[in-house]
Amino acid sequence: MSQSTDGPPRVLILGGGFAGLYCARRLAGANARVTLLDRTNHHLFQPLLYQVATASLSPADIASPIRWVLRRQANCRVLLGEAAAIDPDARLVTLADGSALGYDYLVVALGVSHAYFGHDEWAPLAPGLKDLRDALDIRNRFLSAFERAERETDPAAQRALLTFVIVGGGPTGVELAGAIAEIARKAMPRDFRAVDTRAARIVLVEGSPRLLSAYSPRASVRAYHDLERLGVEVRLDTHVVGVDSHGVTLDNPAGKRIDAATVLWAAGVRASPLGARLGAPTDRQGRVIVEPDLTIPGRPEVFVAGDLARVTDPATGREIPGVAPAAMQMGRHAGALIARELLRAPSPPPSPALPPARPSFVYRDKGTLATIGRARAVGSVWGLAVAGYPAWMLWLLVHILYLAGFRNRIVVLINWAWAYITYQRGARLITKE
Amino acid sequence: MSQSTDGPPRVLILGGGFAGLYCARRLAGANARVTLLDRTNHHLFQPLLYQVATASLSPADIASPIRWVLRRQANCRVLLGEAAAIDPDARLVTLADGSALGYDYLVVALGVSHAYFGHDEWAPLAPGLKDLRDALDIRNRFLSAFERAERETDPAAQRALLTFVIVGGGPTGVELAGAIAEIARKAMPRDFRAVDTRAARIVLVEGSPRLLSAYSPRASVRAYHDLERLGVEVRLDTHVVGVDSHGVTLDNPAGKRIDAATVLWAAGVRASPLGARLGAPTDRQGRVIVEPDLTIPGRPEVFVAGDLARVTDPATGREIPGVAPAAMQMGRHAGALIARELLRAPSPPPSPALPPARPSFVYRDKGTLATIGRARAVGSVWGLAVAGYPAWMLWLLVHILYLAGFRNRIVVLINWAWAYITYQRGARLITKE
Repeated sequence: MSQSTDGPPRVLILGGGFAGLYCARRLAGANARVTLLDRTNHHLFQPLLYQVATASLSPADIASPIRWVLRRQANCRVLLGEAAAIDPDARLVTLADGSALGYDYLVVALGVSHAYFGHDEWAPLAPGLKDLRDALDIRNRFLSAFERAERETDPAAQRALLTFVIVGGGPTGVELAGAIAEIARKAMPRDFRAVDTRAARIVLVEGSPRLLSAYSPRASVRAYHDLERLGVEVRLDTHVVGVDSHGVTLDNPAGKRIDAATVLWAAGVRASPLGARLGAPTDRQGRVIVEPDLTIPGRPEVFVAGDLARVTDPATGREIPGVAPAAMQMGRHAGALIARELLRAPSPPPSPALPPARPSFVYRDKGTLATIGRARAVGSVWGLAVAGYPAWMLWLLVHILYLAGFRNRIVVLINWAWAYITYQRGARLITKE
Repeated sequence: MSQSTDGPPRVLILGGGFAGLYCARRLAGANARVTLLDRTNHHLFQPLLYQVATASLSPADIASPIRWVLRRQANCRVLLGEAAAIDPDARLVTLADGSALGYDYLVVALGVSHAYFGHDEWAPLAPGLKDLRDALDIRNRFLSAFERAERETDPAAQRALLTFVIVGGGPTGVELAGAIAEIARKAMPRDFRAVDTRAARIVLVEGSPRLLSAYSPRASVRAYHDLERLGVEVRLDTHVVGVDSHGVTLDNPAGKRIDAATVLWAAGVRASPLGARLGAPTDRQGRVIVEPDLTIPGRPEVFVAGDLARVTDPATGREIPGVAPAAMQMGRHAGALIARELLRAPSPPPSPALPPARPSFVYRDKGTLATIGRARAVGSVWGLAVAGYPAWMLWLLVHILYLAGFRNRIVVLINWAWAYITYQRGARLITKE
């Protein structure tokens, strides 16, 4: 599995998300032996993950095998495995199975996960949404809650089964809350006999004074009103202080306790733990504070890209957000720098003593969009605020185009068209108990 | 959850497969309170399950929520739960969670599973294919085998990782072997760098002297040759005498041992254990030997339908095969008889002392088809032998039509068209480890 030190320089990319994949693609044709390592066999179109969690799409609609995506790139191999340790001095990555991979350039793009603010015991009670397994887990939980409600005879227990609490008012929380409200109100009522699914209670809890805090204040207000119209209770300035198997406890005296069978977690950010072992400074969430060129201090051969990298935009002084376009741009930036240096000096690889002068990473903000239920979205595009139906059409267009390169776009489009016309959800399957 | 004894007669259907679902549908409009109980929330189009196992289709393409299928049938409710015991004297079914459901008519359509011929310890080593969970398990195993082979440096271990043994030469075994051979030879070669997936060894082991023993001898010969052309080694008259984590042991002295990382089980039939608790005679596989009207002796209110019923065709003297059309026809027959009696005598329900004269179940054999890889099939339709490309076109047409009533047919058709044109498989996802 390991590669000899003879031959073209070895570029090792950890992670097959947007940053890792776009870095690998940028290295197509370069005189390098590229290895992309990921612990799953697929690249995931993460912005649509909530649609798998809410039974609109199937896993295969938003994921493609990484080796299939890169099949034509002869200088790149794809390995299924998990990085366990990095030794920057020896330029060696050790895998969970004990094997090791050497490198001349390393790109760490391992992403972030959700965080429970020091309450990891809440994780099994309130699952987060980061990969396909999470999405199927959430789908099973919320569909099962309706099934159990249909069989429940105790009114209080039935009420708890029809109560859904979503913690975190970022894009994921907003999109989950909107989608669940819509399914309960529109797609399900006719299927059930004993319960009225339209009576389901959906509560979105956000600790800050507004939803979508990374968006404009105007978008936040619009999202709030759109969710209220869908019947979602939005609780701002409210923190969760307890999660148990019967619901959540809040710090808000007005509604301290909510009995709910389903609690979903869409809050907090925790960086992949390997980031902290690079020897570079990290922020409170564990993200690696990188140099302007995305490398770590004193190691010009080690790049960090994607959500794991904490980058401050020199133009605005603001932090670059953890969104898909930023990850793609960082991946491409790292790939371009490596490709350029390989052209100039195929070997030996650059020495830490002589870091070459490199261009800084510049983030191009094309905008952000979040959907709220059916045919509504909020956000900004090239600096312009957008909302409502036009924003949703734009969201649809952008996501269909982004799925290009994969063959799933026709199937996804049909699924969406079907869901839009009929309010039905095609993937309402409980696949485990 | 239980229903009062007042009101229209209660019809309880156990199982939401073809027999149970078609029985429920036949009771639409009847003066009855119909309950359909299933341990999953979805009806599964089982003939295409192997396509989920071999990464052609997604679970949602071949499954629909039962309550969605029956949403317009006001006299029918759908419950998610597992029947644990049946008390025919008390006319009561107890569920796994301890609750109970009474009935005036009972239709037991719980189906069959695969059997390991007294070697249940083989089950975790050689998974069978009966539900979506099995299909995803098999998909994960065979995709993971290629991933592990790509990283393996020991030639013997790599060889074992690229060896796939399928036990059982019925339709499921034949279809699995053909599909796996085709993926390895056509879809995967370009994606891998260290292994040549075209060198994969696929062995199909069958205990009897021919494949597809329920089909005509001509179809068996054709299937054999079609599989050989795809590079599948077919071993007839051969039994598996041992399964371990490194492969299988056969009773054939010529090739006693096959080292294989992936062993799939497509042999044997074992009836749902509840069938034996009805107090009716059962056959060696545990299937219930029913009266000509599909009821059990002395209990005109208890029907058994689908694969769980053992029915001999009075016309041919042959056993009616465990295929989807037979299950649908049995379900409809039971539903029709119940509907007719409810029209005549809405209450009280029929008494065992006075069994009414009822028409016998008559099986209409419309034919059977099995696909072998891409664009090939064998079987018979209305008594005519068919094979090759025309048979495959027929198979495609029949399955698309059968999926009607569900919305998945367009998506399935696109997936198939894509797979046919490009040899690619859209659902090549490993979703758990």
